[in-house]
Amino acid sequence: MDLKNEVKKIAGRAKEASRSLGSLETEIKNAALKEMARALVRSKSYIMKSNGKDLMSARKLRLSAAFMDRLRLTDKHITGMADSLNEVAGLADPVGSIEKLTKRPNGLLIGKMRVPIGVIFVIYESRPNVTADCVGLCLKSGNSLILRGGSEAIHSNIAIFDVLNKAAAKKGLPPNSFSMLRVTDRKAVDILLGLAGVIDLVIPRGGESLIKEVAKKSKIPVIKHYKGVCHTYVDEHADLNIAQSVSYNAKVQRPGVCNAMETLLVHRDVAARFLPPMAKMLIDAGVELRGCPLTRKILRKNGIKAATESDWYAEYLDLILSVKVVNTLEEAIGHINKYGTAHSDAIITEDYDHAMDFLEKVDSSSVYVNASTRFTDGYEFGKGAEIGISTDKLHARGPMGLEELTTYKYVIFGKGQVRK
Amino acid sequence: MDLKNEVKKIAGRAKEASRSLGSLETEIKNAALKEMARALVRSKSYIMKSNGKDLMSARKLRLSAAFMDRLRLTDKHITGMADSLNEVAGLADPVGSIEKLTKRPNGLLIGKMRVPIGVIFVIYESRPNVTADCVGLCLKSGNSLILRGGSEAIHSNIAIFDVLNKAAAKKGLPPNSFSMLRVTDRKAVDILLGLAGVIDLVIPRGGESLIKEVAKKSKIPVIKHYKGVCHTYVDEHADLNIAQSVSYNAKVQRPGVCNAMETLLVHRDVAARFLPPMAKMLIDAGVELRGCPLTRKILRKNGIKAATESDWYAEYLDLILSVKVVNTLEEAIGHINKYGTAHSDAIITEDYDHAMDFLEKVDSSSVYVNASTRFTDGYEFGKGAEIGISTDKLHARGPMGLEELTTYKYVIFGKGQVRK
Repeated sequence: MDLKNEVKKIAGRAKEASRSLGSLETEIKNAALKEMARALVRSKSYIMKSNGKDLMSARKLRLSAAFMDRLRLTDKHITGMADSLNEVAGLADPVGSIEKLTKRPNGLLIGKMRVPIGVIFVIYESRPNVTADCVGLCLKSGNSLILRGGSEAIHSNIAIFDVLNKAAAKKGLPPNSFSMLRVTDRKAVDILLGLAGVIDLVIPRGGESLIKEVAKKSKIPVIKHYKGVCHTYVDEHADLNIAQSVSYNAKVQRPGVCNAMETLLVHRDVAARFLPPMAKMLIDAGVELRGCPLTRKILRKNGIKAATESDWYAEYLDLILSVKVVNTLEEAIGHINKYGTAHSDAIITEDYDHAMDFLEKVDSSSVYVNASTRFTDGYEFGKGAEIGISTDKLHARGPMGLEELTTYKYVIFGKGQVRK
Repeated sequence: MDLKNEVKKIAGRAKEASRSLGSLETEIKNAALKEMARALVRSKSYIMKSNGKDLMSARKLRLSAAFMDRLRLTDKHITGMADSLNEVAGLADPVGSIEKLTKRPNGLLIGKMRVPIGVIFVIYESRPNVTADCVGLCLKSGNSLILRGGSEAIHSNIAIFDVLNKAAAKKGLPPNSFSMLRVTDRKAVDILLGLAGVIDLVIPRGGESLIKEVAKKSKIPVIKHYKGVCHTYVDEHADLNIAQSVSYNAKVQRPGVCNAMETLLVHRDVAARFLPPMAKMLIDAGVELRGCPLTRKILRKNGIKAATESDWYAEYLDLILSVKVVNTLEEAIGHINKYGTAHSDAIITEDYDHAMDFLEKVDSSSVYVNASTRFTDGYEFGKGAEIGISTDKLHARGPMGLEELTTYKYVIFGKGQVRK
């Protein structure tokens, strides 16, 4: 059979499965999720062995340490996947719930019923644990799923997938509720991206070039997951202890991820007090600072580099931080809306009006008061897991969990009403 | 100035306006809406005169009666526009409301704040009253708006727009909160459709070919508004009086619109009792019936035409109705999901399980029990007006009002939390 037919068959079966999945009882879905969690833990050594194959190939290709880090599965990762599946099993089923049911003057009751989106196609790179998160969320939200992982993690992904699939079948899930493209031929992806009407949504996760290419080629709606240039703004009314610990956490705790801070903005009235100890902490943690002229003047003893215009746009994903002193809250908000990527941004302040202003005017998918931007994550937001962090504006923004994987239909309860 | 620069300037100004509109006080928005309503009524004769010019051109072009009907503005239309604006003024402002604010175990309060989408570009044909509906809804939801009406209604659209614009300025709305493309050059639309990052959403309303073309060319997300092949299913447990009045209303009250019924499905157990009087009523009202073999057998005295496969797919928008007898509820649901356009479909039944099954399994944007599909409309749904009826699955389905013209951002209230 040729590739096109094979791929179309996979999509067609996914569509078929989506019809049964959409009205599957919650208890069956939860039983399958829990069985999957148990199966992952039971199959730890099999999964680790498969992961070993991928790691070996990656080593041969001399891929970067950061890449190896994302690829490597540890005991903790496997337990984490299982925990997520159990957590998702414990969440309320969004499918079928009716919101905003209101009565019209003519007696019609009109509400919005949550329903699955249909067939979701996820394209992702390196991190194999994404496989389990996607399966768990799509299953619970009643969507069927087609997965296409990166070739560098193919053995790990297939191992996880097979374990989950067997567990699902055991609990009576419809066949083909989730499927994985095992052909690494890129043409297979292109064929799927053309199947509007069969696949309902495409979610690409990975590098910017992958996402751009998918968005360009797809005939199907795409929710994009771009980068994060995240800011922390230390207001003149900040509690400087909070400012210090939150800024440190946002930069240092895990610098290689999209919700880590890339730029620190500091109000000039507190800059001379706040910056020197903050800079010391960061430099001690190995962070390279790049400052605006005033920052450099204040920190002159440390001889830090000058930030250039391109630094304000940079997603370092590394122990590098650009620092800017601003004159007003408005200047901070303006900087964030101009240079940021509308991902995650925080204000540190004890001033009520400043906090509310910042929340209102910063046009980002997650806006914080007095907390680390590192919390932008489906699990941290209480969603059990995430299928990604949308940087789009329509349908879903920020971490996408069960609710964001559904849409709605209007349901109207009448007793014979006709229109006049 | 060349076209490209001129059009880009319009879009740039709309973007600028959207920034102020997003945080404009509700009272200012409401005052502007009410002033607009008053201004429309005051300017009735000016608007009618402008509409007269369009009608004259249309007559010269010998456009169809249905077309003329959509183009013609009456006293009632103008009052209707004003009523809609007042109704929208009376609705709650969605912008800034925070939903699902929940407390995480670490004390973070996380909620979804409703925010405007940004800049919305609406492309529409013939009906000039769409102008006022779009302006009212976009203003109240804090979006700036670029309108592009059909050339056949240009005088009417400009007249309405100018009246609204002056009223808005009087009440202190930011300039360029809404703007209208006055160049009829189609290239202007193409230029706007390329301005991703400036314009946030495109809504095309009109014929299928217009919508397809826009969707194909656009670099910006499009919410499509396709046709409606709507069904009424008369269950074996139907109250046949309700079935008769609802079916009659869905077909006859206004056949030329997307929420009118195109196919009547009847359970075989009630077909012999229900169809003859129903057919008589419809035929008396001038409806042409096209039936399945069993329908024709039951109605043999009336010599009705045979429905072909293409009839089940047809959106007649006219006094024509296809009729099919089905053996089961499942067959009815299967027919609707196969031949329908996921717009509006109704079941007439007194059986609880059948009603709930139909609501769950029919994959349409508006699903009814015991009411006419003609209610699928923003005004009838309590939204004051509508910017269109989405036939897409993502972001918004069915009638789009204020809520559907917003998106959300996560707002997170902390007290110094850092991620472990």
